[in-house]
Amino acid sequence: MMETSLPPIPLISRLSIFGVGLIGGSLALALKAQGMVGEVVGVGRSPSNMQWALEHGLIDRICSDPAAAVNGAEIVVLAMPVGQMAAVMHDIAPHVRPGTLITDVGSTKQDVAALMHEYLAPHLAYCVPAHPIAGAELSGARAARADLYQARNLVLTSLAETQPAALARISAMWKACGAQVTQMSPMEHDAVFAAVSHLPHVLAYALVDMLAARDNAEELFGFAASGFRDFTRIAASSPEMWRDIALANHTALLHEMDAYLATLSALREALAQGKGADLLSAFERASTARQNWQHAHVMC
Amino acid sequence: MMETSLPPIPLISRLSIFGVGLIGGSLALALKAQGMVGEVVGVGRSPSNMQWALEHGLIDRICSDPAAAVNGAEIVVLAMPVGQMAAVMHDIAPHVRPGTLITDVGSTKQDVAALMHEYLAPHLAYCVPAHPIAGAELSGARAARADLYQARNLVLTSLAETQPAALARISAMWKACGAQVTQMSPMEHDAVFAAVSHLPHVLAYALVDMLAARDNAEELFGFAASGFRDFTRIAASSPEMWRDIALANHTALLHEMDAYLATLSALREALAQGKGADLLSAFERASTARQNWQHAHVMC
Repeated sequence: MMETSLPPIPLISRLSIFGVGLIGGSLALALKAQGMVGEVVGVGRSPSNMQWALEHGLIDRICSDPAAAVNGAEIVVLAMPVGQMAAVMHDIAPHVRPGTLITDVGSTKQDVAALMHEYLAPHLAYCVPAHPIAGAELSGARAARADLYQARNLVLTSLAETQPAALARISAMWKACGAQVTQMSPMEHDAVFAAVSHLPHVLAYALVDMLAARDNAEELFGFAASGFRDFTRIAASSPEMWRDIALANHTALLHEMDAYLATLSALREALAQGKGADLLSAFERASTARQNWQHAHVMC
Repeated sequence: MMETSLPPIPLISRLSIFGVGLIGGSLALALKAQGMVGEVVGVGRSPSNMQWALEHGLIDRICSDPAAAVNGAEIVVLAMPVGQMAAVMHDIAPHVRPGTLITDVGSTKQDVAALMHEYLAPHLAYCVPAHPIAGAELSGARAARADLYQARNLVLTSLAETQPAALARISAMWKACGAQVTQMSPMEHDAVFAAVSHLPHVLAYALVDMLAARDNAEELFGFAASGFRDFTRIAASSPEMWRDIALANHTALLHEMDAYLATLSALREALAQGKGADLLSAFERASTARQNWQHAHVMC
């Protein structure tokens, strides 16, 4: 037998990405870098962003028609802002062929699951909601990087209807990008990220908004230093995106805000009563936990 | 006339530093780098830290006796933890000569002013409370750097009794280290730093302590990402130091905690009622203010 020099068959013959920004664009770059995808079709609202993505090889083709974009795609990735999720699902639903996998990258998962049930009912066996945990400070195709997902967490929240083979395929796609794939229920996902992501964003927004409204805001910001800088970095995040996340995950976020208000009120009482030992205990528990976390995570 | 090759007369013939850590040690290094100080005498509790400081030229002499340490000093710098402030003032008070300048580096200023009135009453004309705004994540002489104060803020909060010449001398000392010197009243100082420093520390401690107490703390921390990392960095700070700061500045800090609890409760109500426009307004104001601040500050 002769050895052939044919390239390996890619995992995905055609991938269609709605929203070629930091998240969608980085997925395309990562899969291309691994030789895992044949053709990447991009759909997006900003012509200049799409043109840039095409010229820089993130995508192989721009498609302005949702029906055409899902035609022949093995995997459809919904990576546009979550506010467009319902409209895009509505547009593609009549054109998705049975067996085409549909996944997303949204920061909340119960709402995506509900939208899939509403708009994509015939395709639920092939729907695999997903959430890659990667930075959101930058946006647009220009911010995309082939290594964005290296050693980052990716959470899959399959539906009751999702076929195991569909789940395995999407899991393999993200593992090929270097991600550490975990599975959770949509409810567990939303509870976890309300605590470690959505709540901190609201807390940072609240502090900066409070201080910015003061008569002496300029003086205050003038004396803010590195601790303030780090604490408030996430308050520079996209207001629209975080309004959408807060509304989409309001049940879990309200629960966390109430828990935090109670925790902070207890610290306030300890301070008002001069209970230094209580303050010290809380600060020590937090400091120890934060240092342990830092030691366990290379990225710090 | 012959030109002399004598070195310039230093600004300070002898400086005595109580507490040769990050703050006191960096002051010594900065002044030595500028040729601004003749002899630096160090006083401290940790023999190994003091020996290291001596061997590495931060100080020229170790002095274990407070009376001897202030004898002949032009400037005495109180740079030990704020919890030792009263005891050190008590120990040095009988030995300070008239005209010796006394300054400190504490993060709160009304309490230091009160202690000076209590323990150093005969010397108030020469007392100049000060607060250099420099990182506190590291500690000890090994963390000291000659450039720590370059372009950093330093706040002087002179007493009603402080002589202008004393204020000018301490101001010159810090300017020689590269600091940007500002003057405020002790009350204004404590109000400003309650808002931009003390409150954020308490908020970060509260979040980490709350999550660390959960049954699923390991899972939560496992999915925390870069936003959480930055937001909670200050929660790894010294619990003892921040307990002392909170207690020392409890009036201003309680005011800020109450203001924050009200701000956060209002956001909670907006979320509970699904008022996306209110959330968006608050997030937009915060995002704009944070981005403006970032653009105005090179360190971001």
